[in-house]
Amino acid sequence: MGSDYLKIAVIGAGSWGTAIASLLGGKGHNVHLWHRREEIINNIKLEKENKKYLPGINLGDSIYPSSDLELVVKDSQIIVLAVASQGVRDICTSLEPYVNSDQQIINLAKGLEDKTYLRLSQVINEILPYNEVYVLSGPSHAEEVAKHIPTTVVISGERKDKCEFLQDVFTTDSFRVYTNPDIVGVELGGALKNIIALGAGMSDGLGYGDNSKAALMTRGIVEISRLGKVLGAKSETFAGLTGIGDLIVTCTSVHSRNRRAGILLGQGMDLENVLNDIGMVIEGIKATKIAYEISNLYNCDMPITSAIYKVLYENANVKDVVHRMMNRKNKHEIEEINSLFYHGWN
Amino acid sequence: MGSDYLKIAVIGAGSWGTAIASLLGGKGHNVHLWHRREEIINNIKLEKENKKYLPGINLGDSIYPSSDLELVVKDSQIIVLAVASQGVRDICTSLEPYVNSDQQIINLAKGLEDKTYLRLSQVINEILPYNEVYVLSGPSHAEEVAKHIPTTVVISGERKDKCEFLQDVFTTDSFRVYTNPDIVGVELGGALKNIIALGAGMSDGLGYGDNSKAALMTRGIVEISRLGKVLGAKSETFAGLTGIGDLIVTCTSVHSRNRRAGILLGQGMDLENVLNDIGMVIEGIKATKIAYEISNLYNCDMPITSAIYKVLYENANVKDVVHRMMNRKNKHEIEEINSLFYHGWN
Repeated sequence: MGSDYLKIAVIGAGSWGTAIASLLGGKGHNVHLWHRREEIINNIKLEKENKKYLPGINLGDSIYPSSDLELVVKDSQIIVLAVASQGVRDICTSLEPYVNSDQQIINLAKGLEDKTYLRLSQVINEILPYNEVYVLSGPSHAEEVAKHIPTTVVISGERKDKCEFLQDVFTTDSFRVYTNPDIVGVELGGALKNIIALGAGMSDGLGYGDNSKAALMTRGIVEISRLGKVLGAKSETFAGLTGIGDLIVTCTSVHSRNRRAGILLGQGMDLENVLNDIGMVIEGIKATKIAYEISNLYNCDMPITSAIYKVLYENANVKDVVHRMMNRKNKHEIEEINSLFYHGWN
Repeated sequence: MGSDYLKIAVIGAGSWGTAIASLLGGKGHNVHLWHRREEIINNIKLEKENKKYLPGINLGDSIYPSSDLELVVKDSQIIVLAVASQGVRDICTSLEPYVNSDQQIINLAKGLEDKTYLRLSQVINEILPYNEVYVLSGPSHAEEVAKHIPTTVVISGERKDKCEFLQDVFTTDSFRVYTNPDIVGVELGGALKNIIALGAGMSDGLGYGDNSKAALMTRGIVEISRLGKVLGAKSETFAGLTGIGDLIVTCTSVHSRNRRAGILLGQGMDLENVLNDIGMVIEGIKATKIAYEISNLYNCDMPITSAIYKVLYENANVKDVVHRMMNRKNKHEIEEINSLFYHGWN
């Protein structure tokens, strides 16, 4: 299967879309890369490089850039969505006239839709109900993937045979793809990890150490996993590449906007000034509000998310919030992770 | 319970023993800190500081340093062992004449015994069969604990009531203690994480990026968890503070000897020169051999551990080994983590 060349549409020429297009083009596939803005497309055509979003990576002749959505989508076996999370609904609406039901949609964006609380695969299926939707996620900075630095990711979706087919389509010598049927867990891990990245930044901003950050990340995944289970995810997924793996990359990266925002908040800057200072969308801020609201709806204990919510939206003092978190009632570690499966002490 | 002051013996005045003694002394307990060498003891007495192993931390008057093992152990309710992993058997043999069966032993060392493959609580119980053994483990650099930087750890052992008692004994405003009955998992996580820290160092030494390191850490915990389950541990423990939490601290710390050794190996230095260069025990090197041997014994797939073993003991080329790892047969992610519990695709 891996030797058949496909026509693939990549919708969105940001850094991640461009890196994935480059990877697929490098494998010999017929890759059409779409961006709304003509000047980005012309720049890629002329320079064989996406100077704005993925500078320094030669894209060669294997990618066909275009701003014509119909042309890009027509006859593609696979449509890869690489747009921002809150842009997924709009782009699907634009795609709808050109899409056939036998085209597979692969979503790369990470987030939950504001107000509806929908996972992005659900958003896509609201607009394109007859298409199968798959998700590619994991610890994967675009710049490193484009440089062939060893990377592992997960593909998830409803049909096992199609996941294995897509595994073959994306796999290279330096890009290892695992399959996982738990699309709920894969999507929630990617969306909610940004909350914990904000918290890790706050810990750094407060001048705390490696112990505190490791605790925050570990207990952060525990509570994300707890909410995930309520919403139908498998806890094992959060212990994998799209959960703790992606969290590790985000919390240790100097490039993470979420972590940078957290550092400024930890240093005592208020939210408005943080937003002005960074000047771009910080996904974790919206994700915190959404997760906080869902956790209240389901009565699910998320102490770290609640603490971050209070700092972001109720002007709570970061240091007080950490102090209260450390002084909660004593807890058992595992009962919280997986009380159903666990049979330790009786 | 937390308001009763106890006599506590801390055996070993390295950085971690000293930090724990300081924490317990700060809570008002009557802490006796033992070290074999007179000059270390006299230095602590004179300077109120362990200048050799925990410089910069004032120990005040709450700790009684001594090199007299009998004096320190007599009438102590709790005996904390803070020696190197391969020294546990010897120190227990020295303690044996003075120990009563109602004294609780808390082990802080992380490792498996060479040749016997025993966990350290098993080693302790071979010499002191009538004492209850508990383990305190988690992401906890001694220097940070001594400076009251927020830290979380786990206490594990056979009796729930005693674990909860010990939770109270150790808990402070900045030191949060969880209980976990899975002592097998807690001990294996602490011992085996150093293997993955070596691997993380190699990845850095090869010039790889955040994606590679996050993948290695995540898949590393998966295979440690796989071996752990064979040996009777719960997989949830490896997703917790003593598993991934401790691994995160070790893999991101500039202080980790294991990681530093890995960096040199990744840069192409051979094992003998690495050992000469670092000049101290690197726990992960012995742990790799032990885990490799156990995994062969139980026919348990540990690709990362095997790869590191080949680099350490069979002079394999690091880059070739990584290349082979990335090009193994395609895998499902979760089936490997927890095939018993998992009911995804059928």
